[in-house]
Amino acid sequence: MHELGLQNGASASASELKIGYVGGGSQGWAHTLINDLGQCSDLSGEVALYDVDYEAATRNAEFGNRVMERADAVGEWRFEAYQEMDATLSAADFVVCSIQDPPDETFKHDLDVPQEYGVYQTVGDTVGPGGTIRALRAIPQYREIAATVREECPDAWVINYTNPMTVCTRALYAEFPDINAIGLCHEVHPFQELFAEIAERYIKTAEDIDREEIDVTVKGINHFTWIDAADWAGHDLYGYLDAELERRKPLPGYEPGDMADESYWTNQFQIAFDLYDRFGVLGAAGDRHLAEFVPWYLSIDAPEEIQRWGIRLTPSSARVGGETPDKMMAARVDEFEFTESGEEAIEIMRALLGIEPFKTHLNYPNQGQISNLPEDIIVETNALLTGKGVTPLCAGDLPGEIHSMVKRHVTNQETLIEAGIGGDLDLAFQAFLNDPLVTLKREHAEELFTRLVEIEREY
Amino acid sequence: MHELGLQNGASASASELKIGYVGGGSQGWAHTLINDLGQCSDLSGEVALYDVDYEAATRNAEFGNRVMERADAVGEWRFEAYQEMDATLSAADFVVCSIQDPPDETFKHDLDVPQEYGVYQTVGDTVGPGGTIRALRAIPQYREIAATVREECPDAWVINYTNPMTVCTRALYAEFPDINAIGLCHEVHPFQELFAEIAERYIKTAEDIDREEIDVTVKGINHFTWIDAADWAGHDLYGYLDAELERRKPLPGYEPGDMADESYWTNQFQIAFDLYDRFGVLGAAGDRHLAEFVPWYLSIDAPEEIQRWGIRLTPSSARVGGETPDKMMAARVDEFEFTESGEEAIEIMRALLGIEPFKTHLNYPNQGQISNLPEDIIVETNALLTGKGVTPLCAGDLPGEIHSMVKRHVTNQETLIEAGIGGDLDLAFQAFLNDPLVTLKREHAEELFTRLVEIEREY
Amino acid sequence: MHELGLQNGASASASELKIGYVGGGSQGWAHTLINDLGQCSDLSGEVALYDVDYEAATRNAEFGNRVMERADAVGEWRFEAYQEMDATLSAADFVVCSIQDPPDETFKHDLDVPQEYGVYQTVGDTVGPGGTIRALRAIPQYREIAATVREECPDAWVINYTNPMTVCTRALYAEFPDINAIGLCHEVHPFQELFAEIAERYIKTAEDIDREEIDVTVKGINHFTWIDAADWAGHDLYGYLDAELERRKPLPGYEPGDMADESYWTNQFQIAFDLYDRFGVLGAAGDRHLAEFVPWYLSIDAPEEIQRWGIRLTPSSARVGGETPDKMMAARVDEFEFTESGEEAIEIMRALLGIEPFKTHLNYPNQGQISNLPEDIIVETNALLTGKGVTPLCAGDLPGEIHSMVKRHVTNQETLIEAGIGGDLDLAFQAFLNDPLVTLKREHAEELFTRLVEIEREY
Amino acid sequence: MHELGLQNGASASASELKIGYVGGGSQGWAHTLINDLGQCSDLSGEVALYDVDYEAATRNAEFGNRVMERADAVGEWRFEAYQEMDATLSAADFVVCSIQDPPDETFKHDLDVPQEYGVYQTVGDTVGPGGTIRALRAIPQYREIAATVREECPDAWVINYTNPMTVCTRALYAEFPDINAIGLCHEVHPFQELFAEIAERYIKTAEDIDREEIDVTVKGINHFTWIDAADWAGHDLYGYLDAELERRKPLPGYEPGDMADESYWTNQFQIAFDLYDRFGVLGAAGDRHLAEFVPWYLSIDAPEEIQRWGIRLTPSSARVGGETPDKMMAARVDEFEFTESGEEAIEIMRALLGIEPFKTHLNYPNQGQISNLPEDIIVETNALLTGKGVTPLCAGDLPGEIHSMVKRHVTNQETLIEAGIGGDLDLAFQAFLNDPLVTLKREHAEELFTRLVEIEREY
Ligand SMILES: [Mg+2]
Ligand SMILES: [Mg+2]
Ligand SMILES: [Mg+2]
Ligand SMILES: [Mg+2]
Repeated sequence: MHELGLQNGASASASELKIGYVGGGSQGWAHTLINDLGQCSDLSGEVALYDVDYEAATRNAEFGNRVMERADAVGEWRFEAYQEMDATLSAADFVVCSIQDPPDETFKHDLDVPQEYGVYQTVGDTVGPGGTIRALRAIPQYREIAATVREECPDAWVINYTNPMTVCTRALYAEFPDINAIGLCHEVHPFQELFAEIAERYIKTAEDIDREEIDVTVKGINHFTWIDAADWAGHDLYGYLDAELERRKPLPGYEPGDMADESYWTNQFQIAFDLYDRFGVLGAAGDRHLAEFVPWYLSIDAPEEIQRWGIRLTPSSARVGGETPDKMMAARVDEFEFTESGEEAIEIMRALLGIEPFKTHLNYPNQGQISNLPEDIIVETNALLTGKGVTPLCAGDLPGEIHSMVKRHVTNQETLIEAGIGGDLDLAFQAFLNDPLVTLKREHAEELFTRLVEIEREY
Repeated sequence: MHELGLQNGASASASELKIGYVGGGSQGWAHTLINDLGQCSDLSGEVALYDVDYEAATRNAEFGNRVMERADAVGEWRFEAYQEMDATLSAADFVVCSIQDPPDETFKHDLDVPQEYGVYQTVGDTVGPGGTIRALRAIPQYREIAATVREECPDAWVINYTNPMTVCTRALYAEFPDINAIGLCHEVHPFQELFAEIAERYIKTAEDIDREEIDVTVKGINHFTWIDAADWAGHDLYGYLDAELERRKPLPGYEPGDMADESYWTNQFQIAFDLYDRFGVLGAAGDRHLAEFVPWYLSIDAPEEIQRWGIRLTPSSARVGGETPDKMMAARVDEFEFTESGEEAIEIMRALLGIEPFKTHLNYPNQGQISNLPEDIIVETNALLTGKGVTPLCAGDLPGEIHSMVKRHVTNQETLIEAGIGGDLDLAFQAFLNDPLVTLKREHAEELFTRLVEIEREY
Repeated sequence: MHELGLQNGASASASELKIGYVGGGSQGWAHTLINDLGQCSDLSGEVALYDVDYEAATRNAEFGNRVMERADAVGEWRFEAYQEMDATLSAADFVVCSIQDPPDETFKHDLDVPQEYGVYQTVGDTVGPGGTIRALRAIPQYREIAATVREECPDAWVINYTNPMTVCTRALYAEFPDINAIGLCHEVHPFQELFAEIAERYIKTAEDIDREEIDVTVKGINHFTWIDAADWAGHDLYGYLDAELERRKPLPGYEPGDMADESYWTNQFQIAFDLYDRFGVLGAAGDRHLAEFVPWYLSIDAPEEIQRWGIRLTPSSARVGGETPDKMMAARVDEFEFTESGEEAIEIMRALLGIEPFKTHLNYPNQGQISNLPEDIIVETNALLTGKGVTPLCAGDLPGEIHSMVKRHVTNQETLIEAGIGGDLDLAFQAFLNDPLVTLKREHAEELFTRLVEIEREY
Repeated sequence: MHELGLQNGASASASELKIGYVGGGSQGWAHTLINDLGQCSDLSGEVALYDVDYEAATRNAEFGNRVMERADAVGEWRFEAYQEMDATLSAADFVVCSIQDPPDETFKHDLDVPQEYGVYQTVGDTVGPGGTIRALRAIPQYREIAATVREECPDAWVINYTNPMTVCTRALYAEFPDINAIGLCHEVHPFQELFAEIAERYIKTAEDIDREEIDVTVKGINHFTWIDAADWAGHDLYGYLDAELERRKPLPGYEPGDMADESYWTNQFQIAFDLYDRFGVLGAAGDRHLAEFVPWYLSIDAPEEIQRWGIRLTPSSARVGGETPDKMMAARVDEFEFTESGEEAIEIMRALLGIEPFKTHLNYPNQGQISNLPEDIIVETNALLTGKGVTPLCAGDLPGEIHSMVKRHVTNQETLIEAGIGGDLDLAFQAFLNDPLVTLKREHAEELFTRLVEIEREY
């Protein structure tokens, strides 16, 4: 009967909702949304799909509509593809953004060209040369989305999934300061699972603990997040980290080549624990992301060396062509099975509609949740979502060295936003030069930046 | 199944708890605690009662034990009176502080002496001459409590109910910075009820709404709190305030004498709405409290004039002897009926033990929840309580004039803490002079302050 | 030969300067400028006089030109009256603003109407009802000046003398953020003289000390400035303040009526020392100004009571008609004698031209000089003026209670600027209500504000 | 006649001064002091020399006394060597600190051991491995000095010359917060000369300009200072930097080996201008220092490569034995000639004694002079020195990327202070790891740090 329970009064708008989906031709996240909406009984309405690849959006719409016709689908949703973004977002209650950079080739260059200069990137979508150039690509797209929201659905909640998360979300607010936008990322979830394991290992009474039972304090910027407190049912879990670190030592614990047969997405928390060992706070994103924010993991001589940290460089080949349009998809609705996606979008929508409060971590403008970072930059912390909107939870200061490392990227990202809005490539180059992965000689850095910008221009 | 639901794993420490109660001889709050513990099935242990009036504590212990023997008491608790504070708090899991100033007469003087100088106070326990002198009395007491906690139960959660709330809670942290302490006050609850009424009045589908269904953003310092957003089930309620203000106009809506037959505690939200009218943000404490924080309501010529605002001055007579020890109390356990107290202490304890998350507003050191007030001062905002502890929710800035009004009291309270710790009456006088109710000529202010300090010394 | 001495290289622009003078028809400051320019041998050029009273400007131009013809005039300056502000400021190197509110009657009402409500003002041009209404009058005028500067002479240095100083100077920056503007006021000078006297009284070797030899740390906002350090030739003078305070006690030291025969501008440092006694920092403006910033000096029952503090209320009659145009003026050039004006404008111009560095106190946007006030508000501190421009000297924090008192006015002034720019009288009323002198009942405050605004509208 | 001129009243304490000199056995700076005091006619007193090498102090004392006997020596000073620091500083008016690390060998290791790991340092006394280990050595020494000042001469002005400047000066304040201490460094002077040249090159009327005529805005931390404004006699010089940069391009302008025959201290402003090219603000310390604060200049494959930037690595051999005690020194007083040293210590003392104001750049606790760096850290900016003490001049914010680069070192330096005070080598290692020059693999970094600490321990 407490304040956080299910509320009696159903929200007026929980039926006949409209979700506008920018990037709605994608197979991955669109199918997840169809899966989740199909299993949600208290929301209904229309999903409007917009994609530069209109055909892909049409295929997804058809697929969605057929899934909803299935007997085991409890949701009532219509899917429709649109040719224009403004019609897609017109009077929307929610806007989902999950866009792929149109030409896959750009991603290839984002990774391969820097390697020619000895700059290796494990992901290349957030910081480093790849993240920088992606940011410059994304800023005008996200300004356009924000401008459309301002015109078509200024009160809608915008949920972004695209990387570089911080820059994309910031661009939305830069264009339309009154926008209601959040950015969602899954990188912290495995850490709840990690702490569930730690609980099971160190606490006698702990068995079969779910991720959701673990309460962690999240703080930082997307993909460079940190955890400095963890609890399960009143048991402090953070205090077991020292024992767990000893158990996992030595770090790094692998040899070059050890990961050769693993998935590109493999993650052993080696860097997360190494950061804990260095700075006393647990890094809380996948090691492939964490490695890119500081200079000392990726200043390597050969691509396979990073495997010592239990991860692999994701080659551009793994990125290109990954999501080939499946033209037969609609025909295969019969094979479709509802699954538990692990996605939180539906729970977030329900919370924002006033149905049931929900707590999660998300990316949102700083209004004090990290008290020693500037106001209005996008930070990632826990937040409580209710009918009243998003209320961030205070996460406190970032301590000394961690503040210094994070602030450096905050500065670069703010510079990129300013550069992207003003179309000022010289300014963008300042951020590029100040990136920890760019320890090149000045003239090489300039050459690399110029090449990346020119490749980008071709598309 | 979301993160905020009941957690599977019961906390190891939910049974055999120890609650140390400083001021445990009081009838009011002690009986509430007995009432609430008697109805709580998943906590058990000992309540240790300490009071300067040991007999009163003994009576309460006997009463508590007999209540627990009743058939309808589901709780398992032993009550015991103690003669020493250190034994009371030894190994406690929770410490409750609810102390009365020992000599009732001091309260009398806190109100009556300033009236001789034309300074009227509606309550006199928070700011103004009464609040100032109470602060000076309370600071050494609260430092002693904090010092005992440091020695006897440094990890315990300390729940304070005593006024002046801000100064008492701050004194705990000043003495023992690592203390886990919160301050609880009920003044915001009627505003949730007010918004429930507003919902019922203005929203067709809204009926029989409980206070707990209303989500408000609380921000400020104790008894000078503000609400700038309110929601029920996804419906913005704050937008109806303009209509509600018009409905309630003119403000003030009463004449001197109108309240003569009302309770001293009557409250019509007249000042709360007048502050909304002036500054665009709803004042969110009882009007009797709000009136004391600014100079313009209480600069009156006669005591009954404040009744124009729908409240009364609480005379010192209403304060003295109010709680005469009921020596027959134990004999009347049979007449005792369990009631719903509206107190949240049990829910707070259950949350902090990791049993079930709970959200409420409380007084806690600022770590960013109000981003334009200094760190570490005690502010009142919403917070989420879990096994991990207290996590304040971001409330954002205080806007211009409100910031200026609140900051003035923050400064005074910090000065009082510094003066109280250093035993520096000259410094305390600076805060006294800067209080909005003290618009006296300098020499009169000095005389009044000196008299109040001397009366205090006698006790 | 040190950095602060006279520089070898004469500035290219020290001859053929242009000074644009807005309000150039006034007798007072215009004559001072003529006096000072006539004695300055290393600057020359044109003074362009603009006034809504064009005839008065013409008279001043004629007077100035005739003074320059005198044998003892070493300066080479031409004076010319203009009908348009843009021509006046076109290509100016310096702009001087010293404007009188056109209808003297407004000032009368600013003082007399509030007295009907029991609100007494000793000056009425900075804060309080008078200051508030003057601010609303001045903001559009100063925005027009700033807009003209932006068009006609964006690099010029603008020197403002008009009250309310803080609001006028802030309005310049609000309209044209890149303006180079400072505000000058003399209220601190008598405090240098006061400290010179203190040196002579308490230090054996000190004799005949000039104001300029005294180095004081100035901090605050105009007319509510504070001094917390003072030195003469390496001797700390601030340490003698306690002795000096004792010597001057009791405070207040006068009776109502004592000042009846004194000038309206008489000042005995009674309030300055009383503030030192209360807060440990010396108030550093004339007592007539200081009294208006806090509620406790002017909450009096009769006008003459303020005389207890050694000052008088300046009646509106003393303000009206004070400066009747002297149409015979030009004829009296022969009687004119060059004097030492005590004005610093020439020294400031010489410093900004790179001729000789100069240190003084002035009003300028905060960039850290008072570290616990917001950036960009106008504060008054010491500054060094050189060819590089104005560099404020760090003055440090304002301590507790003083910060709280000053911050309240900062908030009000910022609100007035916002209200003035947006034409939002409701917002302006918030500032009015939050003024320490306005302790009226709400409805009386509203009535007073409305009357003042309406009187203003007539003009 | 303005405020900054020579003051009439001579300071009471300008004669019979006592200067305590810690490190007074050095030949370099001690001889400079003797030279300067010998030519200063308005100060006199005693110089007390303290050094761990007492003999060296004795030799300097004898030398000083004999110089003062010379006919052309106008100063009246006695020099005396002391065996104890407390007697040296007893009742001192000024304390000069200029200490050499006792065993020269440590410096050798500071440079050579990191080179084994591929970490090259151009100086190695401020940041990087060498600066880090020096900081750990210096912190206890400087705490001892501050403790002695607190006991023996708490009001004295302490002038520090030792590197790492920031950490040494900060350690003084950490130990004794009320100390009056400044840190002096010459690295900005050549930039005044650079701007004098620029004036002469680009301004027709500019000839034979002295360094002292150039007014620059200095901001940053020692050896990582920046200039963002420059003026000569009212002429903006900063605007010529773009032209000057073009004239100097390409950058870097040398080849490995080009500097082989140059002094180790050669400096061509190549890195200073490169930073201007990158970030729009001129780096303002010698290139050898600037190169060590960012990762991209010194991540080289061979020692001579840095010569491309017009500088050389200073080998440890250049440091060891450089100042062999000259036992014949006293005998050579006859050969001594007074010269203009360029040192400002005497001018600073005269200013602080109230004789003549002086403006220079110096290292001092931040109180707002750099508004986006934390309070109390040691920053380098301009300051005005008068009898009232040191008043920093506001320098404004550090812009984006520069703030991020500087803040990283501020964090490291604060961490080192905390580590040095607490004797916490793990904490010190955090700072070491976060140094831009330490881009080593974790285990190599750990090994290097451990080796450096152990070498240090031997001494
Ligand atoms: Mg992600
Ligand atoms: Mg209360
Ligand atoms: Mg003035
Ligand atoms: Mg140096």
